Amino acid sequence: MTIKLHCFGESGNAYKVALALELAGLDWQPVFVDFFNGETRTEDWRARVNPMGEVPVLQDGDMTLTQSGAMLDHIARTTGKLDGDRSEILRWLFWDNHKFSTQIGMTRFLMNFLPEAKRPQPVIDFQLGRLKAAYGVLDAQLKGRDWLVGRDVTIADLSCCGYLYYPEPFGFDRADWPEIDRWLNNIQSLPGWKHPYDLMPRAAAA
Amino acid sequence: MTIKLHCFGESGNAYKVALALELAGLDWQPVFVDFFNGETRTEDWRARVNPMGEVPVLQDGDMTLTQSGAMLDHIARTTGKLDGDRSEILRWLFWDNHKFSTQIGMTRFLMNFLPEAKRPQPVIDFQLGRLKAAYGVLDAQLKGRDWLVGRDVTIADLSCCGYLYYPEPFGFDRADWPEIDRWLNNIQSLPGWKHPYDLMPRAAAA
Repeated sequence: MTIKLHCFGESGNAYKVALALELAGLDWQPVFVDFFNGETRTEDWRARVNPMGEVPVLQDGDMTLTQSGAMLDHIARTTGKLDGDRSEILRWLFWDNHKFSTQIGMTRFLMNFLPEAKRPQPVIDFQLGRLKAAYGVLDAQLKGRDWLVGRDVTIADLSCCGYLYYPEPFGFDRADWPEIDRWLNNIQSLPGWKHPYDLMPRAAAA
Repeated sequence: MTIKLHCFGESGNAYKVALALELAGLDWQPVFVDFFNGETRTEDWRARVNPMGEVPVLQDGDMTLTQSGAMLDHIARTTGKLDGDRSEILRWLFWDNHKFSTQIGMTRFLMNFLPEAKRPQPVIDFQLGRLKAAYGVLDAQLKGRDWLVGRDVTIADLSCCGYLYYPEPFGFDRADWPEIDRWLNNIQSLPGWKHPYDLMPRAAAA
């Protein structure tokens, strides 16, 4: 049965899962969520897909799952692909959720997808400072390594790279972080890699 | 061999792990980290314990682990206690790291542990709004349930409750959230439960 991923192109959290499904060679399809027009806030969507209103949502047979980290674990566990040392992988998935993607996602949203008059500049400035420290942690970890955990690509890489291929500004420039840049090239070189906007339909006008 | 948890009382992320170690009946001891006086920023501490400067850090034999979610998974997996459906537990651990504790930890820090003149009020106000939505999600999930996952306490409960017993203000009042309040009482009623300040040494003056 085809796996369904409720998603939209701008969601880096959805991209992590879409890329894992693609690289693991699974039979899946994106189900477009019209996020910026409020689809996840409608009663119909919440009743049908996810009462919490979060995207992405994965439907695999009878199972419905939220939170990209739990989906990545599900994909690695059920396929045996993109897997590795459990504690080390979880450590990076949690770091990504705790310190990295969660900050990027919000900052990128405030800087790009909110109307300009509504952008809270003090919040954006504060977040950009925190993010710089986080880029430094990732860059240092990648020194002398091709992948975050072990000797091959795992879901830890796919989680942490989730927002880093997007063109919209959020205080990240690959040229500033040589180790991250090299690692992003490694991921891009994987057979089957696709850019988020080529893997999922976009919700905002390009 | 005694498990060591590098921690300090004010860290809700450390409390999650300390409480899990205690409730799982493991032989463990807290190793005090003088966080507010900058111990985690010293070269010695980074060389000896954690190059990333994060607290908590778990040392179990030869294994050193960061990120409370990875530690909780390690404790549940190695003891078989506080465990349950893997995907559902991870879903709540990731939700906690992505949307809940990470926001509370920062907001509580800004509101209580930064000198008053340095507190960024627009950031605090923004965070308080986001947190209110998150309390609502948790309260709704707990309606008609004693525990977050399945029919018994799991590491998902211990993760999500990590900051909720602290007395310092961060926009949370148990009286506003009856389901969360009832669930916190369930956790407090577990044999061996202790308040964070009774389980770990405090870093700031009481």
